[in-house]
Formats: sequence, structure tokens, C-alpha cells
Amino acid sequence: MSKFLCEKYKNLEPYVPGEQPKDREYIKLNANETSMLPSPRVYEVLRSGRMKRLGFYADPDALELRNAIAEKYEVTADEVFAGNGSDEVLGMIFLAFFDEHSKIAYPDISYGFYKVFAKSFGIDGTAIPLKEDFTVDVDAFIASGRHIILANPNAPTGYVLPVSEIERMVASDENRLVIIDEAYVDYGNETCIPLTKKYKNLIVVHTMSKSRNLAGAHIGYCIADKELIKDLNGMKYSFNPFSLSDFSIAVGTAAMKDSAYYEECAAMIIEERAYLSEELRKLGFEVLESHTNFIFVHHPVMHAKEYQEKLKNAGILTRYFPQERIDNYLRITIGTREEMEAVVAATRDILQKAAA
Amino acid sequence: MSKFLCEKYKNLEPYVPGEQPKDREYIKLNANETSMLPSPRVYEVLRSGRMKRLGFYADPDALELRNAIAEKYEVTADEVFAGNGSDEVLGMIFLAFFDEHSKIAYPDISYGFYKVFAKSFGIDGTAIPLKEDFTVDVDAFIASGRHIILANPNAPTGYVLPVSEIERMVASDENRLVIIDEAYVDYGNETCIPLTKKYKNLIVVHTMSKSRNLAGAHIGYCIADKELIKDLNGMKYSFNPFSLSDFSIAVGTAAMKDSAYYEECAAMIIEERAYLSEELRKLGFEVLESHTNFIFVHHPVMHAKEYQEKLKNAGILTRYFPQERIDNYLRITIGTREEMEAVVAATRDILQKAAA
Repeated sequence: MSKFLCEKYKNLEPYVPGEQPKDREYIKLNANETSMLPSPRVYEVLRSGRMKRLGFYADPDALELRNAIAEKYEVTADEVFAGNGSDEVLGMIFLAFFDEHSKIAYPDISYGFYKVFAKSFGIDGTAIPLKEDFTVDVDAFIASGRHIILANPNAPTGYVLPVSEIERMVASDENRLVIIDEAYVDYGNETCIPLTKKYKNLIVVHTMSKSRNLAGAHIGYCIADKELIKDLNGMKYSFNPFSLSDFSIAVGTAAMKDSAYYEECAAMIIEERAYLSEELRKLGFEVLESHTNFIFVHHPVMHAKEYQEKLKNAGILTRYFPQERIDNYLRITIGTREEMEAVVAATRDILQKAAA
Repeated sequence: MSKFLCEKYKNLEPYVPGEQPKDREYIKLNANETSMLPSPRVYEVLRSGRMKRLGFYADPDALELRNAIAEKYEVTADEVFAGNGSDEVLGMIFLAFFDEHSKIAYPDISYGFYKVFAKSFGIDGTAIPLKEDFTVDVDAFIASGRHIILANPNAPTGYVLPVSEIERMVASDENRLVIIDEAYVDYGNETCIPLTKKYKNLIVVHTMSKSRNLAGAHIGYCIADKELIKDLNGMKYSFNPFSLSDFSIAVGTAAMKDSAYYEECAAMIIEERAYLSEELRKLGFEVLESHTNFIFVHHPVMHAKEYQEKLKNAGILTRYFPQERIDNYLRITIGTREEMEAVVAATRDILQKAAA
């Protein structure tokens, strides 16, 4: 640490991304990414004359991308904010709307970045415990009197709240901002985007890193009432107007326009999710009912940490969270059938050797 | 503005990027970009198998890119921080090292973002006037007792301070952080990067948007003592760990490894800069001696604002700053010979019509 670091950051606990070891080839199921290709239209863009214009700045308004998103969700471009991954979108939301006088609430078990942002920006953040069965305690959130940030479906549980429950929180207080992070919504769930037409205190955040197979391009966006979007664009122009490269705008637009392709990919993930869940249950695992592109599993005998290490030795990366309540669960990203068969085979082998 | 926007941002004045009008084709000389292609190696990457891995997150440490930068400048990767454009690099520097107790100084005439950052983050920022002749008043900066942020060469003047003057500021107080933004250093100037070996209070910021012909990929970096770099990486991990897409890391690395190519491009810019400066002087303009990829010009009769508008009508975009002291100057980016000839022809025509 240098002597110049601000006092308030001396105890910062940065977010820890999934590991990216380089010692060998792994089947990478630890960061809810995918080995599936993005839409073929993405590759058309890469081969196009547009890539000859890399000497010029991208459109800071990213209008082309926002128009494509607006069309998909039947809103207007001025109801869409686009940024460098949903992390930047969330960062701009935190910067614009919360300060040291704000009180926010998020679940104790959820995406780790909500807490990191609250700490980074000196915001009073409270973790509201999930219920015993790992579902979100909607009444506790409403009773908290705080702004709310929730992943729905939630991670790493994979559970989802119905849109009616989201609406209950949003409608409970028009002075409460409700941020719903729908990173995993495309794996068989209903989006709450239509509620943004009715309420001016709801922001729905999406990412193209999951169902659009574009984690490497890092594109996120949110949809909300246009006054909120105007504020977010103002923040972006005060911070990093060109944070979306022209490459990301171009491939993001191409992918957004090819809904048929991503729906096919999501359907395949849902199928593989059912396959892996069933196979692991047969091997004695408890598998939480997933609504996402990962499953969260627990074995009655083998500890999750041990299971993770043995899978890693077998060339398969998964994600373990050393956190109270979930420290005997393992998160496994859903991939292709070949990848899922590798998980099943490795698991069978690990359990057999442990029993021997 | 929504009712949720934080009080402190209600009077924010966001940075205004160069315009990007879409009504017709323009010769774009208003944002110090370039119509020249990036290195051919960039296109090799775009055609490579790497683009099949877009479903995976990029390396948040961007080690490949940092290694290439370290090699070029004879430092180590832990002395290099890479980010989403020099704007993000500057943003992380402001966030990490300055707070409401910090006092910083920047020139009254310089890159507009320094002031925007100071305002955005609630930092006490002061503009120290350039001298009458538009050179930086080094003694005033030293006497200010403040942290210093300077573009060198400066924009939009195009003037440069010798490295010995930078060292004088850095050496004046080891508790003062000195940030030197060398966005335009590659157009015939000496970098002060070697000073980072000697001083622990100097950060040198670079961009690949200018001399590397990669504005559309938006890559920036800085070089400093490794304790400062460690702090910046900590901030990045608390804010947006994946802000550099895999595309930007890949093409940035390819471009950084092809120094021969960019040196050729910079030499061409220097040649065209001499050509345009000479031609405009022949037409009666005062042209400040430029050390960058733009010139800053003033005409004794035609007002800069009028000149800008008439160039725009002729299909050429340039940048006018409605700011005290420089509101009768125009900034023109240096481009290819063809583009420069178009500027000369249009200018000749504009002056002739005005005289008629």
C-alpha cells in the first residue's frame, strides 16, 4: 500500500473474481461463463469494414446498441443505459443515487459486488438474511425502509422470486429505489422490465456476459424510467464516456439482434441443467432447484471444499464460497453436454475413491 | 433529473466529448483521432481463434497487455496499471489517492476532464493559469503546495515541458503526487517514464487512443512505483475488474508489440503537422508550435468560431473551446496528407470568400 492511498480505502475488500489458473487446460465452470460461441452475426461484424475505424472513438451514447436493446424489450432508447458490464452499470447506479446518507439492503447471500460497492462508496449497506430455505425474505426487505438491491434469480442459490413479489417491493414506497439484477433471467424466467413502465423507482439490470455468450466483450445495461437513465448518462459522461469500446458496441448490437440464436443456447443450458441436476441427485447430492446457468449443490458426506478440490484435480473448475450458511455448497456452471458428462464422470470417480 | 440523484451531483458539468454528427460524411479532425489503421497485427488477432473465446471473461489483471507495456518501457508488469482508456486510469487515480481533504492543481487551459473529476469526486481542485505565452507556470505549481496533474505535451496548446521541469516538480516534495498525462508524448517528445524508477510520487499516464491508432478500443495505462500500482489494482477490483474486454487486451497487446508500425505513423503525423502549420501560416494564421497530433491556430481577421463553422460546412470537423483566453483559437487534428490538403483548400476558399 502506498502512503497516498485514501484513508477510507485502507480496509477495502475488493471483489474476488473466479480463478483463472493458467497451469493447464480446465473445463471452466466457476464463473457462469460459457464455451458456446456468440451469435454468428458477431463474427460477421468482426470481418466487416467497421473494424477499419478503430482509430476513431466509439459513440459515447452507444445509441446503436441502446436502440437494439430498446427494440428487444419494447421500450425506448432513452429508457436504456448501456455500460461496460453490469458491474459498471451497478457502479454508476451506486454513484448517482446513493451517498453517505443513503441506506440500502441486499441479501446476505447474493452477488458479492453489492457489498463491495457499498463499502467502496461509503454507503450504509445492510445484509438481510435469506430465509432458512434460502428464499428471499420480501417482507423483511419491505420493512427495512431501505433502498433494495437484489439479484433475481439470485446467485449462488439459483432461486427466483415471481414478478409479483418484485412489484410488491417496488410498490411499497415510491421513494425507495429498487434495483433488480436480472443477470440470469434468460434461463427460463420472466423479466420484470414491463414494471418500469408503471413505476419510476425500479431499475432492471441485465448483462450480455451470460445468455448472450459475450463475457469477453463485457457489456451491461439497465432499463428504467427515462429520468433515472438521464442521471446515469450524466454520471457516465463525468466518469468515462467511452467505456464501451466500438468493438463491444458492434458485437453487442449484433448479438442483441439475434434473439433466436441466444434463445436456442438458453434452451440448451436449461436442458443440460436438468441433466446434471438429475445425475448428481442420483449420486446422492442435494441440488437446489436452479433457474439460472449454474447449480448449487451439497453432498451429505463429502464436504463441498473437498469436492471442489478434487474436481479441480480432475481438470474441472467450480466456485466455492467460504461464507457462513453456504460453506458446504458448491456452485457449478452449466455447460455443454460434453462438459456436463465430464462433471458426472469425475464426480462418480471422486465418490468411489472416497468410499473405497 | 430524477428525485433520486444525489445532492452533490445536481450541479455536475459532465465532460463534453468532440461532436460525432451523423448527418453526412465528415473529415473528422475534432477529437485527435486518426483515420489511419492500427497495426496489421491487430487484424491478425481479430481473425484468430482467440475470438472464439468471447464467452469467457477476460483476464482482470490484463497481464498479457501489462507485460507488453512493461517490455516496451523497460519496467516490470507490477509497475504498470492498465484500464479502460486513460479516462478510467485517471478516474481510478482520483478515487484512490484524492478525497475531500486533498488539494490538487491543474492548468487553467488543459484537458477538461481533470476539472470534471475533481468536481465529480468532491476534491478541492484549483486551476493555475498558464503564463501569458501559454506555457506552464512550473514555479506556481510548485509553490501551490498541491498535488499536480498536468498534460505534457499540453492540450489544446500543443506545448511541451522538458523532462527536467517535470522532475523539478516531482522532486520538490515527496508527499506531493505528480500525475503526468503523456497522451501526446509519442509525437516527437521525450517521456518522463524513467523518472518513475527514481521517485515514488510520480504517475505517468498513457493512452493507446492517439499514437497507437486505437481510440475505438479505448485502452489506457499508467506507470509508477509498484505500491501505487497495487493501490490502483485494488480500486479496479472494487469497481469494475473486467473493464478491459478481452478484445481490447488482445488488440492492445498486438499494437504494443508493433512499435515499428506506430513509430512510422507518428513520423507521418509529424510530417503532416509541419506541412499544415506551414500552409496555414502562409495564409496568415498564427500557429502555435505543436508537439502533438493537433495544431492550435488563430487568425488575425477571421474569428475562430466562424472559421470552425465554415470548415464544418465544408465537411471538416475541428474543435472550438468557448473558454476564456482561448476563445479565438481553433484546434485541428493532424491527419493524412489528403485530409490536410482538404483543410488547406477549404481554408483558402473560406478566406477568399470572406475577403470578397
